Amino acid sequence: MNYHAPLKDMQFLLKDVFKAESEWAKMPAMADAIEMDTAMAILDEGARLTSEVIAPINRPGDEQGVRILDGVVTTPDGYKEAYQLYAQSGWVGFGGDPQYGGMGMPKMLGVLFEEMCYSASNAFALYSSLTAGAALCLASHGTEAQKALYLPKLYSGEWTGAMDMTEPQAGSDLSPVRTKAELDENGQYRITGTKIFITGGDHDLAENIIHLVLARLPDAPAGSRGLSLFVVPKYQVKADGALGEANGVTCGSIEHKMGIQASATCVMHFDGARGELVGQANRGLHAMFTMMNYERLSIGIQGLGCAEAGYQMAASYAKERNQGQGKDGSALPILAHGDVRRMLMTNAALTEAGRALAVFTGLQLDKTKFGEGEQSAAQSLVGLLVPLCKAFFTDLGLECSVLSQQVFGGHGYIRETGVEQLVRDVRIAQIYEGTNGIQALDLLGRKVQPHDGAVLKLLVQELESTCAELPAQWDTEASRIRQAFGDLLDAAMTLKASDEAADALNSAAVDYLHAMGYAVYGLMWLKMATVFDHAEPALSARKTHLMRFFFARIFPRFDAHLASALSDVEITKGMPADLF
Amino acid sequence: MNYHAPLKDMQFLLKDVFKAESEWAKMPAMADAIEMDTAMAILDEGARLTSEVIAPINRPGDEQGVRILDGVVTTPDGYKEAYQLYAQSGWVGFGGDPQYGGMGMPKMLGVLFEEMCYSASNAFALYSSLTAGAALCLASHGTEAQKALYLPKLYSGEWTGAMDMTEPQAGSDLSPVRTKAELDENGQYRITGTKIFITGGDHDLAENIIHLVLARLPDAPAGSRGLSLFVVPKYQVKADGALGEANGVTCGSIEHKMGIQASATCVMHFDGARGELVGQANRGLHAMFTMMNYERLSIGIQGLGCAEAGYQMAASYAKERNQGQGKDGSALPILAHGDVRRMLMTNAALTEAGRALAVFTGLQLDKTKFGEGEQSAAQSLVGLLVPLCKAFFTDLGLECSVLSQQVFGGHGYIRETGVEQLVRDVRIAQIYEGTNGIQALDLLGRKVQPHDGAVLKLLVQELESTCAELPAQWDTEASRIRQAFGDLLDAAMTLKASDEAADALNSAAVDYLHAMGYAVYGLMWLKMATVFDHAEPALSARKTHLMRFFFARIFPRFDAHLASALSDVEITKGMPADLF
Repeated sequence: MNYHAPLKDMQFLLKDVFKAESEWAKMPAMADAIEMDTAMAILDEGARLTSEVIAPINRPGDEQGVRILDGVVTTPDGYKEAYQLYAQSGWVGFGGDPQYGGMGMPKMLGVLFEEMCYSASNAFALYSSLTAGAALCLASHGTEAQKALYLPKLYSGEWTGAMDMTEPQAGSDLSPVRTKAELDENGQYRITGTKIFITGGDHDLAENIIHLVLARLPDAPAGSRGLSLFVVPKYQVKADGALGEANGVTCGSIEHKMGIQASATCVMHFDGARGELVGQANRGLHAMFTMMNYERLSIGIQGLGCAEAGYQMAASYAKERNQGQGKDGSALPILAHGDVRRMLMTNAALTEAGRALAVFTGLQLDKTKFGEGEQSAAQSLVGLLVPLCKAFFTDLGLECSVLSQQVFGGHGYIRETGVEQLVRDVRIAQIYEGTNGIQALDLLGRKVQPHDGAVLKLLVQELESTCAELPAQWDTEASRIRQAFGDLLDAAMTLKASDEAADALNSAAVDYLHAMGYAVYGLMWLKMATVFDHAEPALSARKTHLMRFFFARIFPRFDAHLASALSDVEITKGMPADLF
Repeated sequence: MNYHAPLKDMQFLLKDVFKAESEWAKMPAMADAIEMDTAMAILDEGARLTSEVIAPINRPGDEQGVRILDGVVTTPDGYKEAYQLYAQSGWVGFGGDPQYGGMGMPKMLGVLFEEMCYSASNAFALYSSLTAGAALCLASHGTEAQKALYLPKLYSGEWTGAMDMTEPQAGSDLSPVRTKAELDENGQYRITGTKIFITGGDHDLAENIIHLVLARLPDAPAGSRGLSLFVVPKYQVKADGALGEANGVTCGSIEHKMGIQASATCVMHFDGARGELVGQANRGLHAMFTMMNYERLSIGIQGLGCAEAGYQMAASYAKERNQGQGKDGSALPILAHGDVRRMLMTNAALTEAGRALAVFTGLQLDKTKFGEGEQSAAQSLVGLLVPLCKAFFTDLGLECSVLSQQVFGGHGYIRETGVEQLVRDVRIAQIYEGTNGIQALDLLGRKVQPHDGAVLKLLVQELESTCAELPAQWDTEASRIRQAFGDLLDAAMTLKASDEAADALNSAAVDYLHAMGYAVYGLMWLKMATVFDHAEPALSARKTHLMRFFFARIFPRFDAHLASALSDVEITKGMPADLF
C-alpha cells in the first residue's frame, strides 16, 4: 500500500486552525515539552515511519494472519521487527507521563500520529493503542509501586497492554461478568475466568503482556457495581521488574474474523493468575473507563485513518484509470466523471472535517490535564466529543471506505488491490469499544440531555466565537449551523420530556448522533474557513471546494436524521416482539 | 445458516397486492402455464430446496472457496451435487422457452424464487443466474439452429452459461475491447483474447460451459459499435449436441476476492476458440444487453436476498440474546432496546418494499412478452425499473447487511456467525453488471429525462390508481409520495435544462436514483396498504408497523438526496484535478 501522511493538512490544523503554539503557551507542561518546529519534525518522522515501515506489512499481514500453534501465538512476518522499531522510537510512550519515561506529548499532536498509524495498518496500530491505554489507566488509578513497576516498560514498548472485559454472556452489559478474584493464602489475588474478544491478548511482539482484567471479588455486590480491576501480567513480574514464571494466563484460541487479521483477537483463560487490585475494590468499571475512553477516541481515529487511506488509493486510481473519451477522442481519466468526483469529494469533505474534530478533541484532552481555568469545561466537552468521535468517525469510515472501493469498480473487490481490506478492517470499529449504538446512548442521554443541554451550549459558544472571525462569504453556512445547533438543543429537550423518555432516547440516539455529527462537522468547516487565507493557495482552494461540497451535498442529511430521531417513539416501540 | 423463505409475504404480494391470477388470466401463455395453487406449491418447493440444500453449503463454501490446480477449477464440497439436484428439478429453465424445454413460468414468480436462492447462497445462485441469462440471450438473438442446440442443455442445467465482456482496459466502457474474431479457412470464427472477472467462467458443476463473448471482427468500426457477440463453448458441440474436443477456452486464474468465495471468478483465455456469431455483426452490445438486463435485475435481487437473510439472522439473535435487565430485574432480550428495533425495522421496511418492487418489475417483464396492449408501456417501465432495482436493492442490501451484522455486536465480526459473509458477498453486487453509478446514469439520463419524463409519468399513473383504492388513514403518506414524484419530475427537467447537462447528469445521478428509490418504495407501501385487510391479522399488523416506520424514519432521506442531486454542478465539477 502506498500511503503518505496528509502532512500539509495536519500542519494547517495545528498551526492555523487550532493555533497550537498559543494554546501550549497557556499550559506550562506543554510549553516545556514541545514547540511548533519540534511538532512538525515529529509529524515528519511519523509520516516516514508509517509509510516506510508500517504500511508495507499491512497487506501481507492480512493474508498471513495471526496463527496459534500449541498455545503459542505468532503475528505475521515483519510485525515483530516493525513493533520493536516503533517502540524504540518512543511512539508507544508518546503521550505518557514523563516521570515514568513517557514523552509527555500533547494529545492534539498524538491524534494526528495515531491517524497515520491506522491509515498504514489497522491491525498494527491496535497493539500500540491498547498498550498506551493500559498505561494511561495505570497512571490514573495505579499505586505508586504499580506505576513504577509497569509504566516504564509499557512506555518503552518492552511490554504491551490488553483490556479484558468481555465474556460470552457479558458484552454491552458488563454486569453479568463472572471472572473471579480471590485472595490466596499469601494474601495475593488469584484471578479465574475466561474473557473473549481480547485484542492483543497474546502475541510475540513483546516479552510480557499486561492485562487489565475486570473481575468480581467474593463479597462483591451483584451487577456492574461489583466489578473490580486487576493488573494481571502474562509472566509474573518481580519487584525489580525482572520476569518470573508464567502466570496462568493462556490464549485458548484466536478468533476467525472478517478483517484485522493481523491483530490477535484472543479467547483468554485466567487460571488462578496472580493479580493486583487497581484502584478501589468494586470501582473497577470507573477505572476501566479511563482506558475505555482513551480507546474510544483511538477507535474513532481508526475510522478516520481508513477513510484517508481509502481516499488516497481511490484518488490516485481515478487519475490513472482511463474509461470513456473526451470530446476530442482523448482517453479520459475516470476523475473526469462527476460521479467519481462525488465519491472522492464526499470522502475528503467528511475526513478533513473529522480530522479537525480529532485535533479539537485532542486539544480539549490536553486542557483537561493542563488548561488553567479551563479544565472543567474541557472535561465536559471531552465527555461529549469522545462518543461522537468514536461513532461518527467509524460510521463514516465505513461509508468512505466503501466509496473508495467503489471508485475502483471490479478491481476494488480483488484482495490484491488492497482497498477491500479497508472495508473489512474498519467494520469492527463500529462494534468494539462499545457499539456505536452504545456511544449514541451515552452522547444523548448522559452528555447532551442533562442540565438543559449545558455541554452542547459550550459548542454553541465555540460556534459563536468562530462566527465572529468568519469572512462574510460564509454567512449562509454559518446560519445553517446556528440553526442546526438550535434544532439539536430543542430535539434533546423534546425527547427528554417524552412520557417514555428512556425508550425515546434509545430509539432516537443513533439518528441524533448522526445529526449532531453533521452539525459539528459544519462547525469544523467554519473554523477552518476563518483561516483559509493563512494556508498556501492550493490548500486554501481545495478546502474552499470541499467546504462548498459539504454544505451543498452532505449537510442535507442533517434534517433527515433529525426528523427520524424526532419521530413518535411508539413507531419503533409499538411493534410486538412476536411480529419480528 | 438457518434460512426460511418468507413465504407468507411472498404469497401476500402475489395474491393480494399484485393479483397475479387476474394478471395471468389476461395473458394466455401465462394462464396456460400456471395457476395460483401451482404457484404456491412452487414457492413451497423452492423454500424447501433453498433451506435444506443450498443454505447448508453456503458457510463451508465461503471457507473452502474455489480452487484451481493445473488449470482445473473445482468448486467447494457439495456444490456439484447441489447444482445437479437444482438443475434436475427444473429451476434453471424455470422462465425458459417451453419450445426448447423451458418451463415458461412467469417472472413475477421467478423473482421470488431467485430471492430465496440469493438468501441461501450468493455464490451458488450466480451459476444458475448466468446460465438462465445466457439462455435468454440465445433465445432472443440466436438462430433456430443455435436455439435448438444450446437451449435444452442450458435449461436442463447440463451445461452452464457465462458472459464474457470485461477486459483489463475495458470495464464500464467496453469500447476498447480487443478480443478478436477472425474467420478461419473453414469459414468458422476463431476467437482470441483474454477476458477478466468472468463469473462461472470455469468450474466442475456441469459438463460444458457456454460463453457469450464480446469480440471484434477484423473490419469492425472502432468503439463499442464494432463489437459482435459470439457463442463459444468450452468443449466443441457437434451437430447432434454431443461434446467434441476442447475448444481453446482455458481459465488462467481464479481471482482472490472479498467475498462470494464459492463463485469462480475467472480470467479466461480464448486461444483461437471456435465461435458462432449471435445476432448481427457489430450489434453484439445490443444482443449482450438482453443478458445484461436479465442479470441486472438478478443482481438487484442478490441485494434483497442478502438483506432478508441478514434480517432473519439478526431478528432471531435479538430475541435470544439477553443484555441488560427489565425493571423487575429479569433478563432482557436485546430486541427490547429501541436501537436494536430501529436496525431490524429499517431492514424489514426496506426489504419488504423492495420485494414488492421486484414482483412489480417481474410483472412488467411478463407483460412485455405476453401483455396484450400493454407491451409498450411495460417495456418502458422495465427500462426504468431495472437500473433502479439493480442499484437501489444492492445499495440497501449493503446497508441492511451491515445493520444485521451490527445487531450481533462483536459476534457479528466472527466468521463462524455467518452474518459477516453477507456483507462481504453483497458488496460485489454494487459493482458488477455495471456499477451502481452506471445504473444511475442510465436511469436518469436515458430513462427519466427523455420525452419530458414520460416513463416516470407511467409510475405517477400507477400511484394515482393506487391512491384511488387507498384507505383514508394513509392520506398523509399518499400526499408525500405525490409530492415526491412531482419533485422528481421537476428535478429531472431542471438537470436536463442545465447549461452543462451532461456533467449535471453525471454529478447528480446517484443521489437522484436514491431519491427515486425511496419514492418508489413509498408507492410500494401504498400499494400494499390497499390490501392490508386481505392479509391474515399478524401480517397485516406487521406491515402496518413497518409502513409507519418507513414514512417516519426512512422517507426523510428523500429530501436529502434530492437536495444533493440539485446542487450546482460547479460544486462537483469545479475542483481542479490536481487538487484531488
